Amino acid sequence: MNLQALIEDIRQQVLPFYGQGRVADYIPALASVAPHQFGFAIHTLDGQQFACGDADTPFSMQSISKAFMLALTLQADGETLWRHVGKEPSGNPFNSLVQLEYEHGIPRNPFINAGALVVTDRAISHFGDAHRHLLHWLRQETGNPRLDADPVIAASEREHGDRNAALAHFMKSYGNIEHAVQTVLEQYFDSCSIALTCRELARAGLFLANHGVSPLTGERYLSRSQAKQVNAVMLTCGTYDAAGEFAYRVGLPVKSGVGGGLLAVIPGKMSIAVWSPQLDSRGNSVLGLEALDRFTTQTGLSIF
Amino acid sequence: MNLQALIEDIRQQVLPFYGQGRVADYIPALASVAPHQFGFAIHTLDGQQFACGDADTPFSMQSISKAFMLALTLQADGETLWRHVGKEPSGNPFNSLVQLEYEHGIPRNPFINAGALVVTDRAISHFGDAHRHLLHWLRQETGNPRLDADPVIAASEREHGDRNAALAHFMKSYGNIEHAVQTVLEQYFDSCSIALTCRELARAGLFLANHGVSPLTGERYLSRSQAKQVNAVMLTCGTYDAAGEFAYRVGLPVKSGVGGGLLAVIPGKMSIAVWSPQLDSRGNSVLGLEALDRFTTQTGLSIF
Amino acid sequence: MNLQALIEDIRQQVLPFYGQGRVADYIPALASVAPHQFGFAIHTLDGQQFACGDADTPFSMQSISKAFMLALTLQADGETLWRHVGKEPSGNPFNSLVQLEYEHGIPRNPFINAGALVVTDRAISHFGDAHRHLLHWLRQETGNPRLDADPVIAASEREHGDRNAALAHFMKSYGNIEHAVQTVLEQYFDSCSIALTCRELARAGLFLANHGVSPLTGERYLSRSQAKQVNAVMLTCGTYDAAGEFAYRVGLPVKSGVGGGLLAVIPGKMSIAVWSPQLDSRGNSVLGLEALDRFTTQTGLSIF
Amino acid sequence: MNLQALIEDIRQQVLPFYGQGRVADYIPALASVAPHQFGFAIHTLDGQQFACGDADTPFSMQSISKAFMLALTLQADGETLWRHVGKEPSGNPFNSLVQLEYEHGIPRNPFINAGALVVTDRAISHFGDAHRHLLHWLRQETGNPRLDADPVIAASEREHGDRNAALAHFMKSYGNIEHAVQTVLEQYFDSCSIALTCRELARAGLFLANHGVSPLTGERYLSRSQAKQVNAVMLTCGTYDAAGEFAYRVGLPVKSGVGGGLLAVIPGKMSIAVWSPQLDSRGNSVLGLEALDRFTTQTGLSIF
Repeated sequence: MNLQALIEDIRQQVLPFYGQGRVADYIPALASVAPHQFGFAIHTLDGQQFACGDADTPFSMQSISKAFMLALTLQADGETLWRHVGKEPSGNPFNSLVQLEYEHGIPRNPFINAGALVVTDRAISHFGDAHRHLLHWLRQETGNPRLDADPVIAASEREHGDRNAALAHFMKSYGNIEHAVQTVLEQYFDSCSIALTCRELARAGLFLANHGVSPLTGERYLSRSQAKQVNAVMLTCGTYDAAGEFAYRVGLPVKSGVGGGLLAVIPGKMSIAVWSPQLDSRGNSVLGLEALDRFTTQTGLSIF
Repeated sequence: MNLQALIEDIRQQVLPFYGQGRVADYIPALASVAPHQFGFAIHTLDGQQFACGDADTPFSMQSISKAFMLALTLQADGETLWRHVGKEPSGNPFNSLVQLEYEHGIPRNPFINAGALVVTDRAISHFGDAHRHLLHWLRQETGNPRLDADPVIAASEREHGDRNAALAHFMKSYGNIEHAVQTVLEQYFDSCSIALTCRELARAGLFLANHGVSPLTGERYLSRSQAKQVNAVMLTCGTYDAAGEFAYRVGLPVKSGVGGGLLAVIPGKMSIAVWSPQLDSRGNSVLGLEALDRFTTQTGLSIF
Repeated sequence: MNLQALIEDIRQQVLPFYGQGRVADYIPALASVAPHQFGFAIHTLDGQQFACGDADTPFSMQSISKAFMLALTLQADGETLWRHVGKEPSGNPFNSLVQLEYEHGIPRNPFINAGALVVTDRAISHFGDAHRHLLHWLRQETGNPRLDADPVIAASEREHGDRNAALAHFMKSYGNIEHAVQTVLEQYFDSCSIALTCRELARAGLFLANHGVSPLTGERYLSRSQAKQVNAVMLTCGTYDAAGEFAYRVGLPVKSGVGGGLLAVIPGKMSIAVWSPQLDSRGNSVLGLEALDRFTTQTGLSIF
Repeated sequence: MNLQALIEDIRQQVLPFYGQGRVADYIPALASVAPHQFGFAIHTLDGQQFACGDADTPFSMQSISKAFMLALTLQADGETLWRHVGKEPSGNPFNSLVQLEYEHGIPRNPFINAGALVVTDRAISHFGDAHRHLLHWLRQETGNPRLDADPVIAASEREHGDRNAALAHFMKSYGNIEHAVQTVLEQYFDSCSIALTCRELARAGLFLANHGVSPLTGERYLSRSQAKQVNAVMLTCGTYDAAGEFAYRVGLPVKSGVGGGLLAVIPGKMSIAVWSPQLDSRGNSVLGLEALDRFTTQTGLSIF
């Protein structure tokens, strides 16, 4: 199969979907991103790279950072982590807070905001500065030493951070946040604000496709079992309230962000990054989902 | 790999878990099942069979019937089905009813009770007698013409069916149940009461591992895409409120029932049935989960 | 104070509110009521009567019947009744079902539908035919032997009764409904379908203003303490999700129905009935609330 | 009726209830209060005073301060206040957060914590230092210039304030908190920490019994209509999740606090303060409820 031709063809198929979604507007800094952009990048375990469109334009990781922070923290914290956060899908959006109350401050999974705050709190216990640790790791894996958080985005997050502050205080009232709420929020916002390109994102995700070992550096970041676990959590919880839809249409572990990026993993084969800023009503990239759906349908590469 | 030796070894490993769960007691007829039983059966796409323990003892399918009813109805109803039922995980147990209210009578997925009632209602529209249709299909696939619903179980279900009646009436108030509530309930209870063995269950599940085509009869029951979809729904919604736990530990599409049975699918390879009646707090077989966890860990056969 | 002049004046003040609400349309039989009608009737404990507008036009009691069924059942059942139903306001409309689940099938109060079904079930235990018993009592108190349920309304209720059937089955699954769901529903729908006039309603409510004794017949229906209790439940739970609004604006125990009727009680003084079919978004008569608000403001007769 | 003899008799009747409740322990400073204390004080509109037991021992107002803060803010803010907070009972305890989400950051009433935080926020807009304003007013009405917040209690509240911080941040995310969360919390905690005696509390509540005018100073604090409104909100929302129970048993507007205090109002007649630190499961004083129940039953002074 000629993957380069395929992704270029898919790009043509999905461009007509421009206009069917809306750029994230919950913070002003994201709302100003040019909407008609689309990047696609693939990195295979044997070192091949394919890319098209805006695959070299940096975008804001947003929630995709949660997958990497989870991996790094799971490596350090081991099974202890799961005393602080669950690994079940969260169901409806409207019950995030009542769920926290019902389950005594333990968030349902590491990819809802409450769960990511808990993971960040655990990461601070292990790494001191969790954001610095993640940034250092990403620079190393992507080979881009200038990778960094976008200060404008980070400031905008902080300014509109009351809902995350509410979650953190609420969990702290149950004893499930160890560090100061302010510290946890700062590092969480900084990590979400890291900007990278599709090509870089696909590189960074390779270890998840390779059972925990980076094929670039040969370094093991997760045990085989832990890599399976992170992929499983991505599949069941990685795309907000559309995990069922993604499993059904794409059939791969995927983590999405409201910056419009998507990281997908084909265990044993490759890592895929797609980006397009317009989002559907559930916060996932419209063109991104269309592109991944076509990719797995046309290659037959779904895990199912 | 010697699968026969492996499953016999796994059986020895999990027998010590006897006593850590409890036989389902929500209806008297199930509560009287002998608790210390364990069966394991594998059927590969190339026709090999492996079995051990109580693999030839019939047990009550219960919710595992939902997976087959879904497949048969999806074949007949196509995408229309998804206007009546969602395909997202359901989150917490406590919100099933509030979810139905919040989403105007559309159940979140076909494997919660409300969703299975809707699927049965759709099946009645297509097949007239949905239970008969399913039973006929199962007899054909398992090659056992005497397969049938257990009338004692079915009567017991009916007698304790007020909660399902509540769900059906509630959905009918939203116009999402077409047929008489009484009819839908009868056929739903009958289907849940079908008894079969591990060996038979593994045979019946083969088409899901074989992209929609039964390797036994050569008949296509689902398109390749639909088979992927059913597997995806099994993975994200197939084990009550423990879908995340199963994805994390087992990493396969699984459908469980409170009779203690589990059907697992390895796409492209094989179908697996495990049964042991003692359940954990979330309604899944204790020894069943332990056995599947060991099986995928020791074979490396997870989809992740 | 000239009450006759006052209520005629109030009628003029509230007629401009015609058109600000909508006639109940959840069953066809109610939707066809002429919208521009307004009746007002007062009956004092010393036997004076005042009425104006359409005070002699019969309308459907709907939920107002719940107050009388509660009184008759409380008389027969005593404190036992409160093991089956609570007496706290219900909060938001959206949580009626989740509340039932959270509180194990015990409805929060006798005036939400679930609670009224439980009261009817208890009434059947005491009176056999609960509806007949209530009807007989109302005929006696109003002095109108032809008072009856409207068969068209009752049939329409039955036809659209799936939501109430859901509630009844759900409570039966918790053991909180003793009789057959079908029987309870029939009698509940019949009682809701009783038609009477404002003048008759004011007469029927007199015993609640007179600490439990009918000033017309001299008969004691409730102990002084029980009469206080029914009034308290009316004030805190009598007007759907607007109990706070009614307490705040009207300051009297009130029971409303979606037929547009309102029964208000001034302990020690009088009973008041208002009727006008157009409802606000919370199911209470628009002109009825306006009229009661003006009446208590202009007479200073609030209990606060 | 000899009220002095009556309340002394009631005191003897309720002392056996010592031990049936537990002193509030959510903050250490409250947990150390001696449990076996009981005070009762009455102040009539015509100037008579009756008191017994520990009526001169200061206790922590806690949520009773919410009634006074509401009155002062309603006077300043008028109907505008009700754009920021509702006036309906809150239903179940478990849904406070989901309710805030469902109703877009508008708390259901001024007496749940979220609502009191909003009232404090509005009070800051009008008075600058809301706590100082309330304290000044209380000093004047009670005639005790040394009345003050207990700094140990206030510090303890602050230290365990994460849940209130969560509520405030959550409402701020909806734009329903104007001032800095930190400022609102400080003033809210300080007001809750004010210590006074039963005798002082009964004096301070007199204007609510006298239709808005203090009979001590002759000053009007609320319009007649506003006084009715505050009493109505106390009756429907003043005693946490037991408003229905209090209406049913006591039949008076009451505001309670977890310090064990209760303020009850008999419109047109008198103001009553009871205090005893042991609380029932819903946070109301056990002996306080028993005493008020007996008082209204034996005097027949209920509003119903």
